[in-house]
Amino acid sequence: MLTYDLEQRGNSTIYEYLYRCIKQDILDGTLAADGRLPSKRKFAKHHQVSLKTVENTYEQLLTEGYIYSEEKRGYFVSPLETDTGSKQARHQNHVPFSVHGSDALSPAPSPSLSDSKSTGFFADFTSNQTASEKFPYDAWAKLIRSILSQGDNNLLQAVPFEGLYDLRVSIAKYLYGFRGMQVSPDQIVIGAGAEYLCGQLISLLGRGRIYALEDPGYRKTAEIYRINGASCEYIRVDENGLCPELLRESPASVVHVSPGHHFPTGSIMPVARRQALLEWAEEDADRYIIEDDYDSEFRFSLRPIPAIQSLRHNHRVIYVNTFSKTLTPAIQIGYMVLPRKLAERYLSAMKGCSCTVSALEQYALAAFMDNGYFERHIHRMKKYYKAKRNCMLGVLERSPLYSHVTVEEKDAGSHFLLHLDTPLSDTELKWLARENGVRLDCLSEYYAGDKAQRAHTIIVNYSDLEEAAFRRALEVLLLAVSE
Amino acid sequence: MLTYDLEQRGNSTIYEYLYRCIKQDILDGTLAADGRLPSKRKFAKHHQVSLKTVENTYEQLLTEGYIYSEEKRGYFVSPLETDTGSKQARHQNHVPFSVHGSDALSPAPSPSLSDSKSTGFFADFTSNQTASEKFPYDAWAKLIRSILSQGDNNLLQAVPFEGLYDLRVSIAKYLYGFRGMQVSPDQIVIGAGAEYLCGQLISLLGRGRIYALEDPGYRKTAEIYRINGASCEYIRVDENGLCPELLRESPASVVHVSPGHHFPTGSIMPVARRQALLEWAEEDADRYIIEDDYDSEFRFSLRPIPAIQSLRHNHRVIYVNTFSKTLTPAIQIGYMVLPRKLAERYLSAMKGCSCTVSALEQYALAAFMDNGYFERHIHRMKKYYKAKRNCMLGVLERSPLYSHVTVEEKDAGSHFLLHLDTPLSDTELKWLARENGVRLDCLSEYYAGDKAQRAHTIIVNYSDLEEAAFRRALEVLLLAVSE
Repeated sequence: MLTYDLEQRGNSTIYEYLYRCIKQDILDGTLAADGRLPSKRKFAKHHQVSLKTVENTYEQLLTEGYIYSEEKRGYFVSPLETDTGSKQARHQNHVPFSVHGSDALSPAPSPSLSDSKSTGFFADFTSNQTASEKFPYDAWAKLIRSILSQGDNNLLQAVPFEGLYDLRVSIAKYLYGFRGMQVSPDQIVIGAGAEYLCGQLISLLGRGRIYALEDPGYRKTAEIYRINGASCEYIRVDENGLCPELLRESPASVVHVSPGHHFPTGSIMPVARRQALLEWAEEDADRYIIEDDYDSEFRFSLRPIPAIQSLRHNHRVIYVNTFSKTLTPAIQIGYMVLPRKLAERYLSAMKGCSCTVSALEQYALAAFMDNGYFERHIHRMKKYYKAKRNCMLGVLERSPLYSHVTVEEKDAGSHFLLHLDTPLSDTELKWLARENGVRLDCLSEYYAGDKAQRAHTIIVNYSDLEEAAFRRALEVLLLAVSE
Repeated sequence: MLTYDLEQRGNSTIYEYLYRCIKQDILDGTLAADGRLPSKRKFAKHHQVSLKTVENTYEQLLTEGYIYSEEKRGYFVSPLETDTGSKQARHQNHVPFSVHGSDALSPAPSPSLSDSKSTGFFADFTSNQTASEKFPYDAWAKLIRSILSQGDNNLLQAVPFEGLYDLRVSIAKYLYGFRGMQVSPDQIVIGAGAEYLCGQLISLLGRGRIYALEDPGYRKTAEIYRINGASCEYIRVDENGLCPELLRESPASVVHVSPGHHFPTGSIMPVARRQALLEWAEEDADRYIIEDDYDSEFRFSLRPIPAIQSLRHNHRVIYVNTFSKTLTPAIQIGYMVLPRKLAERYLSAMKGCSCTVSALEQYALAAFMDNGYFERHIHRMKKYYKAKRNCMLGVLERSPLYSHVTVEEKDAGSHFLLHLDTPLSDTELKWLARENGVRLDCLSEYYAGDKAQRAHTIIVNYSDLEEAAFRRALEVLLLAVSE
């Protein structure tokens, strides 16, 4: 029987410790591929821990793709790439997926109806605005007041281009505690939002190369690449995220991925695929992975999925995230973690440029993180979004529309997908909704390539959606079904 | 005798009114080119105003190039281009200047010694840091506290991409009152500093074209263009600023100029040349002038020079400025004024992007401007810099070095040029200074083309320089002379 010494767990919880031990044994081959794990019940009894603890542990390993389950047979170790440098035959994760061709250099989705101002809609499924009333405004205001009253002369000095050192330390601590990333503050760069930082990355890595973007994908990302004059190629995303084999077939040397929580499909990339991406990056001297971790904080269950940046062989991974989603869009602070060499190159290339974030808000954010406000806020928001999600799904289940829809939901983020049984085209569906006061986007709009794919699938962003409005909106959608 | 009805001057001062009347008469041809103006004394007596008022009026017109003076003969109307569309023969301004060839696509000056951290220097001539203790910190902090305590929900909402409307209104009012620019808030875009906005402009205007930059010029500007992947050509700057004939010979379709106060030469572009630039822009459908008005607020004497943007035929002028220099570098807020059509194109192209400046500081800056703090601060800083400049020049005059230098100073900004009678090369001069604790840049370093030009000329930024440190630094420079 698989045995771990719980006495060795230090300050970790039992769950964390068991998760880490099993993961490590899988990664270093102690647990062989396709080997069966003990049943949850036996494992719990053997270690004299609660069944719930083991369930959580297995669940987390399952979500991350380290293990797979077979009905009535139990849990098995996934065949993983344990050395990203090696070229041995590699299995994909157990979940079957189909491979689609990528459309080289397809244009970004063109602006559509849905981009117009949201006036006149009683329900807006497209708004992913953070619930601003949840932001701990009083704490934030108190910190700013306190910093102002220190009257520190530093508040009037230019901040270093890469950002305030104090804030970079706070971010490094946070990343260590919550994302399992061991990074030095020297690798961190702060800027006025993730969009700005992406533009900087394109300048740093060069406009002469091809950037691979997810298809479907977050529209703003494609916009940022377009605005910054970068050439892009779209790579198909399936239920496990971006397909590494298609990436390998493309001429791209940088890939921009959101493995933690893909928008709009909601898919979470299993660890095997994360490793396949790392392997791809290793194959050529100048390849990079831009890991866009936007929204990863809001996974409802268990621990967040470890970042690609936290895996081994991460010296080609650039990690990007923002506080605009977790805190409020009124605070434009993003950050990125660069591999050490790239960080040095960046600072030398951008020397003489100015930091785009004001000193006051950098000091405030550092204090906000150091005093635990950020952590508590994330925790509260996860609960809030989870409750909101459950409430929305409840409204849906009680609605007459329920028998005409399929919900796709991945326990994360602040949106789900609604597949509607309708004879209408997506354009007709959008117009019908629009004329009846509902603003929505269809999944097909987020495809750069074959837009006919995944038709009749509505994206429901619920972070800014009221229950009553959602109920009324479902009545509108019923028109699309009965017509 | 030239006569203006002082009763018609409304709320203007006599000086402003006379300045405007004479300027208008010159522009519309009422006062013919090369015609003589009445003597200052006669003009003052005739209008029953003080001699000082007329002296100020003539001085301003002279600085802007509307009139010229000949020793012992008096003042004359400059031959100007009165309609930028016409192609009639055109005289250059009366000040003679030599024409140098431009170096097509020369690289930007490479980073040099002087870019390293300024630790270990007792005097740093390269720092143009604003005197931070002069910033009205208490007023700023009070405004921020007051905005925070309103607890307005707007503080947590995303600001429109182009910036907070209130702040754009405040900027439009300021530009009208202080720069004679009539612009709508809809033409104004706010962003995290002028550097960021320049990057946005390059995205908007396109990377396929060639941008003309000043040679010599502000290093950061060249850096920004390089970082953003734009192709640049350097155009020679003489004592009247960038040479329009050389611009016309180049393939550039956008020119980035600082007519208000050129760094590092300090030159101010006379109105004839400003008009020549406008004419150049009119000659082709897709040409633009980016008017970088950085530092223009700190002209010591009289009114600031009117912006190119405020002249007629300004629909190809993009005006860019920042608050980082006027307030504090810790506040990264810049703005630009776009011609109406371009503003529409910009907003449509960048739709979906986020504003890079936090809501709180935009509200604070709007209140700071609306309550007159900004205006009073500028006024105080002008006095402060003028006193500092006079103090520095006094130190220089009393120093043994004085007989070995020539000072070039244009009554503006926060730096002057010091031409040193030395056998050393500029590199040797820099090293000598460096080894003795003085950090300095030479004018020659700012040339992309012929660097041998203007050798032995030191740039003295005095905004951050202490009197005693300057005195000691001059002793160091004496070593260069006596060697």
